[in-house]
Amino acid sequence: MIRLDANSDIPLYRQLYQYFAGEIEAGRLEAGERLPATRELAGQLGLNRTTIAAAYELLESDGWISGEVGRGSFVRQRRAGTSRKSIIWNELLPSAGSFRGSSGHTAGTLISFATSRPSEQLFPLEEFRQTCRETLEDPGLAGMLQLGSPGGYEPLRRHLLEEARTEGVAGPNDDIIITNGCQQALDLLCRVLVRPGDPVAIEDPVYPGLKNLFSQAGAQLIGIPVGQVDQIQRHRPKLVVVTPNFHNPTGETLSLAARRELLRLPGAVIIENDIYGALRYEGQALPTLKQLDETGGTILIRSFSKIAFPGLRVGWVIGPRPVIQRLMDAKQLTDLHTDQFSQAVLLRFQESGRLAEHQKSMLFAGAERLRAILRACGQFLPAGSTFSRPQGGMNLWVQLPEFLDAGELLARSQASGVNYLPGKHFSVSRNWSNALRLSFAGLSTLQIEQGVSLLGEVFSGEMAAQPALAMV
Amino acid sequence: MIRLDANSDIPLYRQLYQYFAGEIEAGRLEAGERLPATRELAGQLGLNRTTIAAAYELLESDGWISGEVGRGSFVRQRRAGTSRKSIIWNELLPSAGSFRGSSGHTAGTLISFATSRPSEQLFPLEEFRQTCRETLEDPGLAGMLQLGSPGGYEPLRRHLLEEARTEGVAGPNDDIIITNGCQQALDLLCRVLVRPGDPVAIEDPVYPGLKNLFSQAGAQLIGIPVGQVDQIQRHRPKLVVVTPNFHNPTGETLSLAARRELLRLPGAVIIENDIYGALRYEGQALPTLKQLDETGGTILIRSFSKIAFPGLRVGWVIGPRPVIQRLMDAKQLTDLHTDQFSQAVLLRFQESGRLAEHQKSMLFAGAERLRAILRACGQFLPAGSTFSRPQGGMNLWVQLPEFLDAGELLARSQASGVNYLPGKHFSVSRNWSNALRLSFAGLSTLQIEQGVSLLGEVFSGEMAAQPALAMV
Repeated sequence: MIRLDANSDIPLYRQLYQYFAGEIEAGRLEAGERLPATRELAGQLGLNRTTIAAAYELLESDGWISGEVGRGSFVRQRRAGTSRKSIIWNELLPSAGSFRGSSGHTAGTLISFATSRPSEQLFPLEEFRQTCRETLEDPGLAGMLQLGSPGGYEPLRRHLLEEARTEGVAGPNDDIIITNGCQQALDLLCRVLVRPGDPVAIEDPVYPGLKNLFSQAGAQLIGIPVGQVDQIQRHRPKLVVVTPNFHNPTGETLSLAARRELLRLPGAVIIENDIYGALRYEGQALPTLKQLDETGGTILIRSFSKIAFPGLRVGWVIGPRPVIQRLMDAKQLTDLHTDQFSQAVLLRFQESGRLAEHQKSMLFAGAERLRAILRACGQFLPAGSTFSRPQGGMNLWVQLPEFLDAGELLARSQASGVNYLPGKHFSVSRNWSNALRLSFAGLSTLQIEQGVSLLGEVFSGEMAAQPALAMV
Repeated sequence: MIRLDANSDIPLYRQLYQYFAGEIEAGRLEAGERLPATRELAGQLGLNRTTIAAAYELLESDGWISGEVGRGSFVRQRRAGTSRKSIIWNELLPSAGSFRGSSGHTAGTLISFATSRPSEQLFPLEEFRQTCRETLEDPGLAGMLQLGSPGGYEPLRRHLLEEARTEGVAGPNDDIIITNGCQQALDLLCRVLVRPGDPVAIEDPVYPGLKNLFSQAGAQLIGIPVGQVDQIQRHRPKLVVVTPNFHNPTGETLSLAARRELLRLPGAVIIENDIYGALRYEGQALPTLKQLDETGGTILIRSFSKIAFPGLRVGWVIGPRPVIQRLMDAKQLTDLHTDQFSQAVLLRFQESGRLAEHQKSMLFAGAERLRAILRACGQFLPAGSTFSRPQGGMNLWVQLPEFLDAGELLARSQASGVNYLPGKHFSVSRNWSNALRLSFAGLSTLQIEQGVSLLGEVFSGEMAAQPALAMV
């Protein structure tokens, strides 16, 4: 019996592929056996015949089966020698358990709220070109192309550290390391600070790339509702990871009082992920935890990815010297150092004032888009829905009436041309089945309005179809 | 009592800094206490006074001490609040145990054989500039700067996979992932394939970045003498990591017979690090293990780092589809994806034929440099020394007469203006105290000749000073 999961992030044709490849690998389907005809199998599974055909094509191109015109598809003889030394990869490889499908490239999707990234329409390409051309004339070009050091490209390190010192973000005992964006910053910190069983407090809901990373490192994850810092202390975590500004996925900002309370936690190391901090569209900026912390127990992560070009992977960590030294050791083993040409280009992009100019247009567009999504959510989401009211960043968090399952409704939304990430992907310990994240920064105000309007139709349609439930 | 290690890779002033910072942090030196005068301490320790002054300057700039003109240096009061919630980083952070000092940037060194990297004098800067300028005009530029996918920049992936298929390096069940150079390829493979306690066979001596990586992952390392593949099977390793072409540090190449024998190992996964494969200066190219392997149990690693620009971190892994899929999952958690602009630039550098042109000049220079170092070793190394005879790559392995310790002689060599990496850094289970690695690819033939000549003097001088030992 073939079981497929329509709500999975893995497309149906690929699930089907995996099923057959597994059966062949395990010997349950033997060489020469005929696979069911596509029409027949489509009927059995209630699927479109092209889905079956796509799976068979992939099986054929990967050498699992061969098709014979007019006769059907047959399991192929494995290559000679396979039995003698073949590796059963599925037994050897531990279960993946990681998160796939954040790319949001679902076929046929017109409007995708699924990815937290800037709009490439806003990229100042001519300024980028000019910055590259200038960097290419730098007398230090050969040095940029040579093997570098794990801490990062020295002129960029110096620049960012000085900037941090000026802002009061870096103290005299702090140092800096350049990483491949925030994700690698978190990964290196995880390697250096987390041992299996360590209690680590993270926000719930939380960005899956953070949750999965610490969970794979064997941390004992403690999900803290966003903003409820008073609930942290009784868990006595070794580490607290927070995104105080425009948290992903909720878009929420930690109040000054909560920041101060967090800093009173005895003995815990705080990792402050400030990836969205530069994208405040309204309201007063608050000091970072790192600025408020007088004890040197906070480690700050920042990045160029959200405010400039995510395709160039450059972020950084500011923290106490002993931590940064260990991060450099870990970085050296991980990938030696971050791409130096991109570091040099981003340094020049910043020093030339072009980054500040670009940030202005990002803030202008972001403010517009934020207003648009708040307006659209107010107008189109069904009664009983709630949503966060971010002051910046890229994400907004919607909670539908409890009996609606955003994961189950995703397929129907995609069929209407709209994509999003259901709440379940962000779940630590709470159940977020009725929630979804809408990443609005990459879409025009028109797309936002259309997209939320279409979502509203899907969700309201489901409510209308479940009147009994709606009464509960 | 202050103990400093003159043979350490850590400069003396920094060791001194660490000593005092540690004493202050531990409370053994209290606020207000006066540090010894530089002249006095220099006398006690038999060091130059500038070394002491450099350590004190760093202590002062980091806020540990403050200097008062005419009175001396005093331990500073720690900042308020420190005692309440200060993190004792040295207790929290596990011991580093990793390898520092491969950069070879020792002050005063004129000729460094310490780093396995190409010469930046050979970088074709104008061709690189032209390639960048063309890439900047690519209509897909905005896409390159946008968030990418963990497998790599699609046009580069396709190009490299097609090339690998044409060469017979990739079979129908293989796929490819782009990584930040070979180091990250090894790191991702380690994450995906190694569990604590797994027996992993590696060559002895071996590149420290490989040994430390697998050792930190908890692998049970089995050191196999380079080329002795018949010694592997009795250890029943889960994984075998080999560099068949121009192995680092020995420069040796695995014979065709040994390659075939390796592939007869039952059940072990083979990781073939082919980072130097394109740098063959003489002799016939041999097929890769991946080409010879008919069972799909070999995973191949390659990189642009040694043949183009190490400062752009782009390498790749070719292996069975299930492995590559897991590597992509791990890559997504590690750093999302590799810098896309550099991937696009390197693709164009290759497609335009510029890489092939550059490779020609690398091969020409490499052949000259290889001849120069072989000649110089024959001429200048003391009697009783042996050295490898590589046919390519960047490294040559010297074994001095057994009673000489290359680690102990390093300080004296550096004082003569020559740097190298002593054999101890490459040791898995054998003792390589009398060995050293000479990385010759980054130096001119003149530097090579001068450098080896100076080393010869240091080593011969030591032999002359130990006539009794030399008799043994």
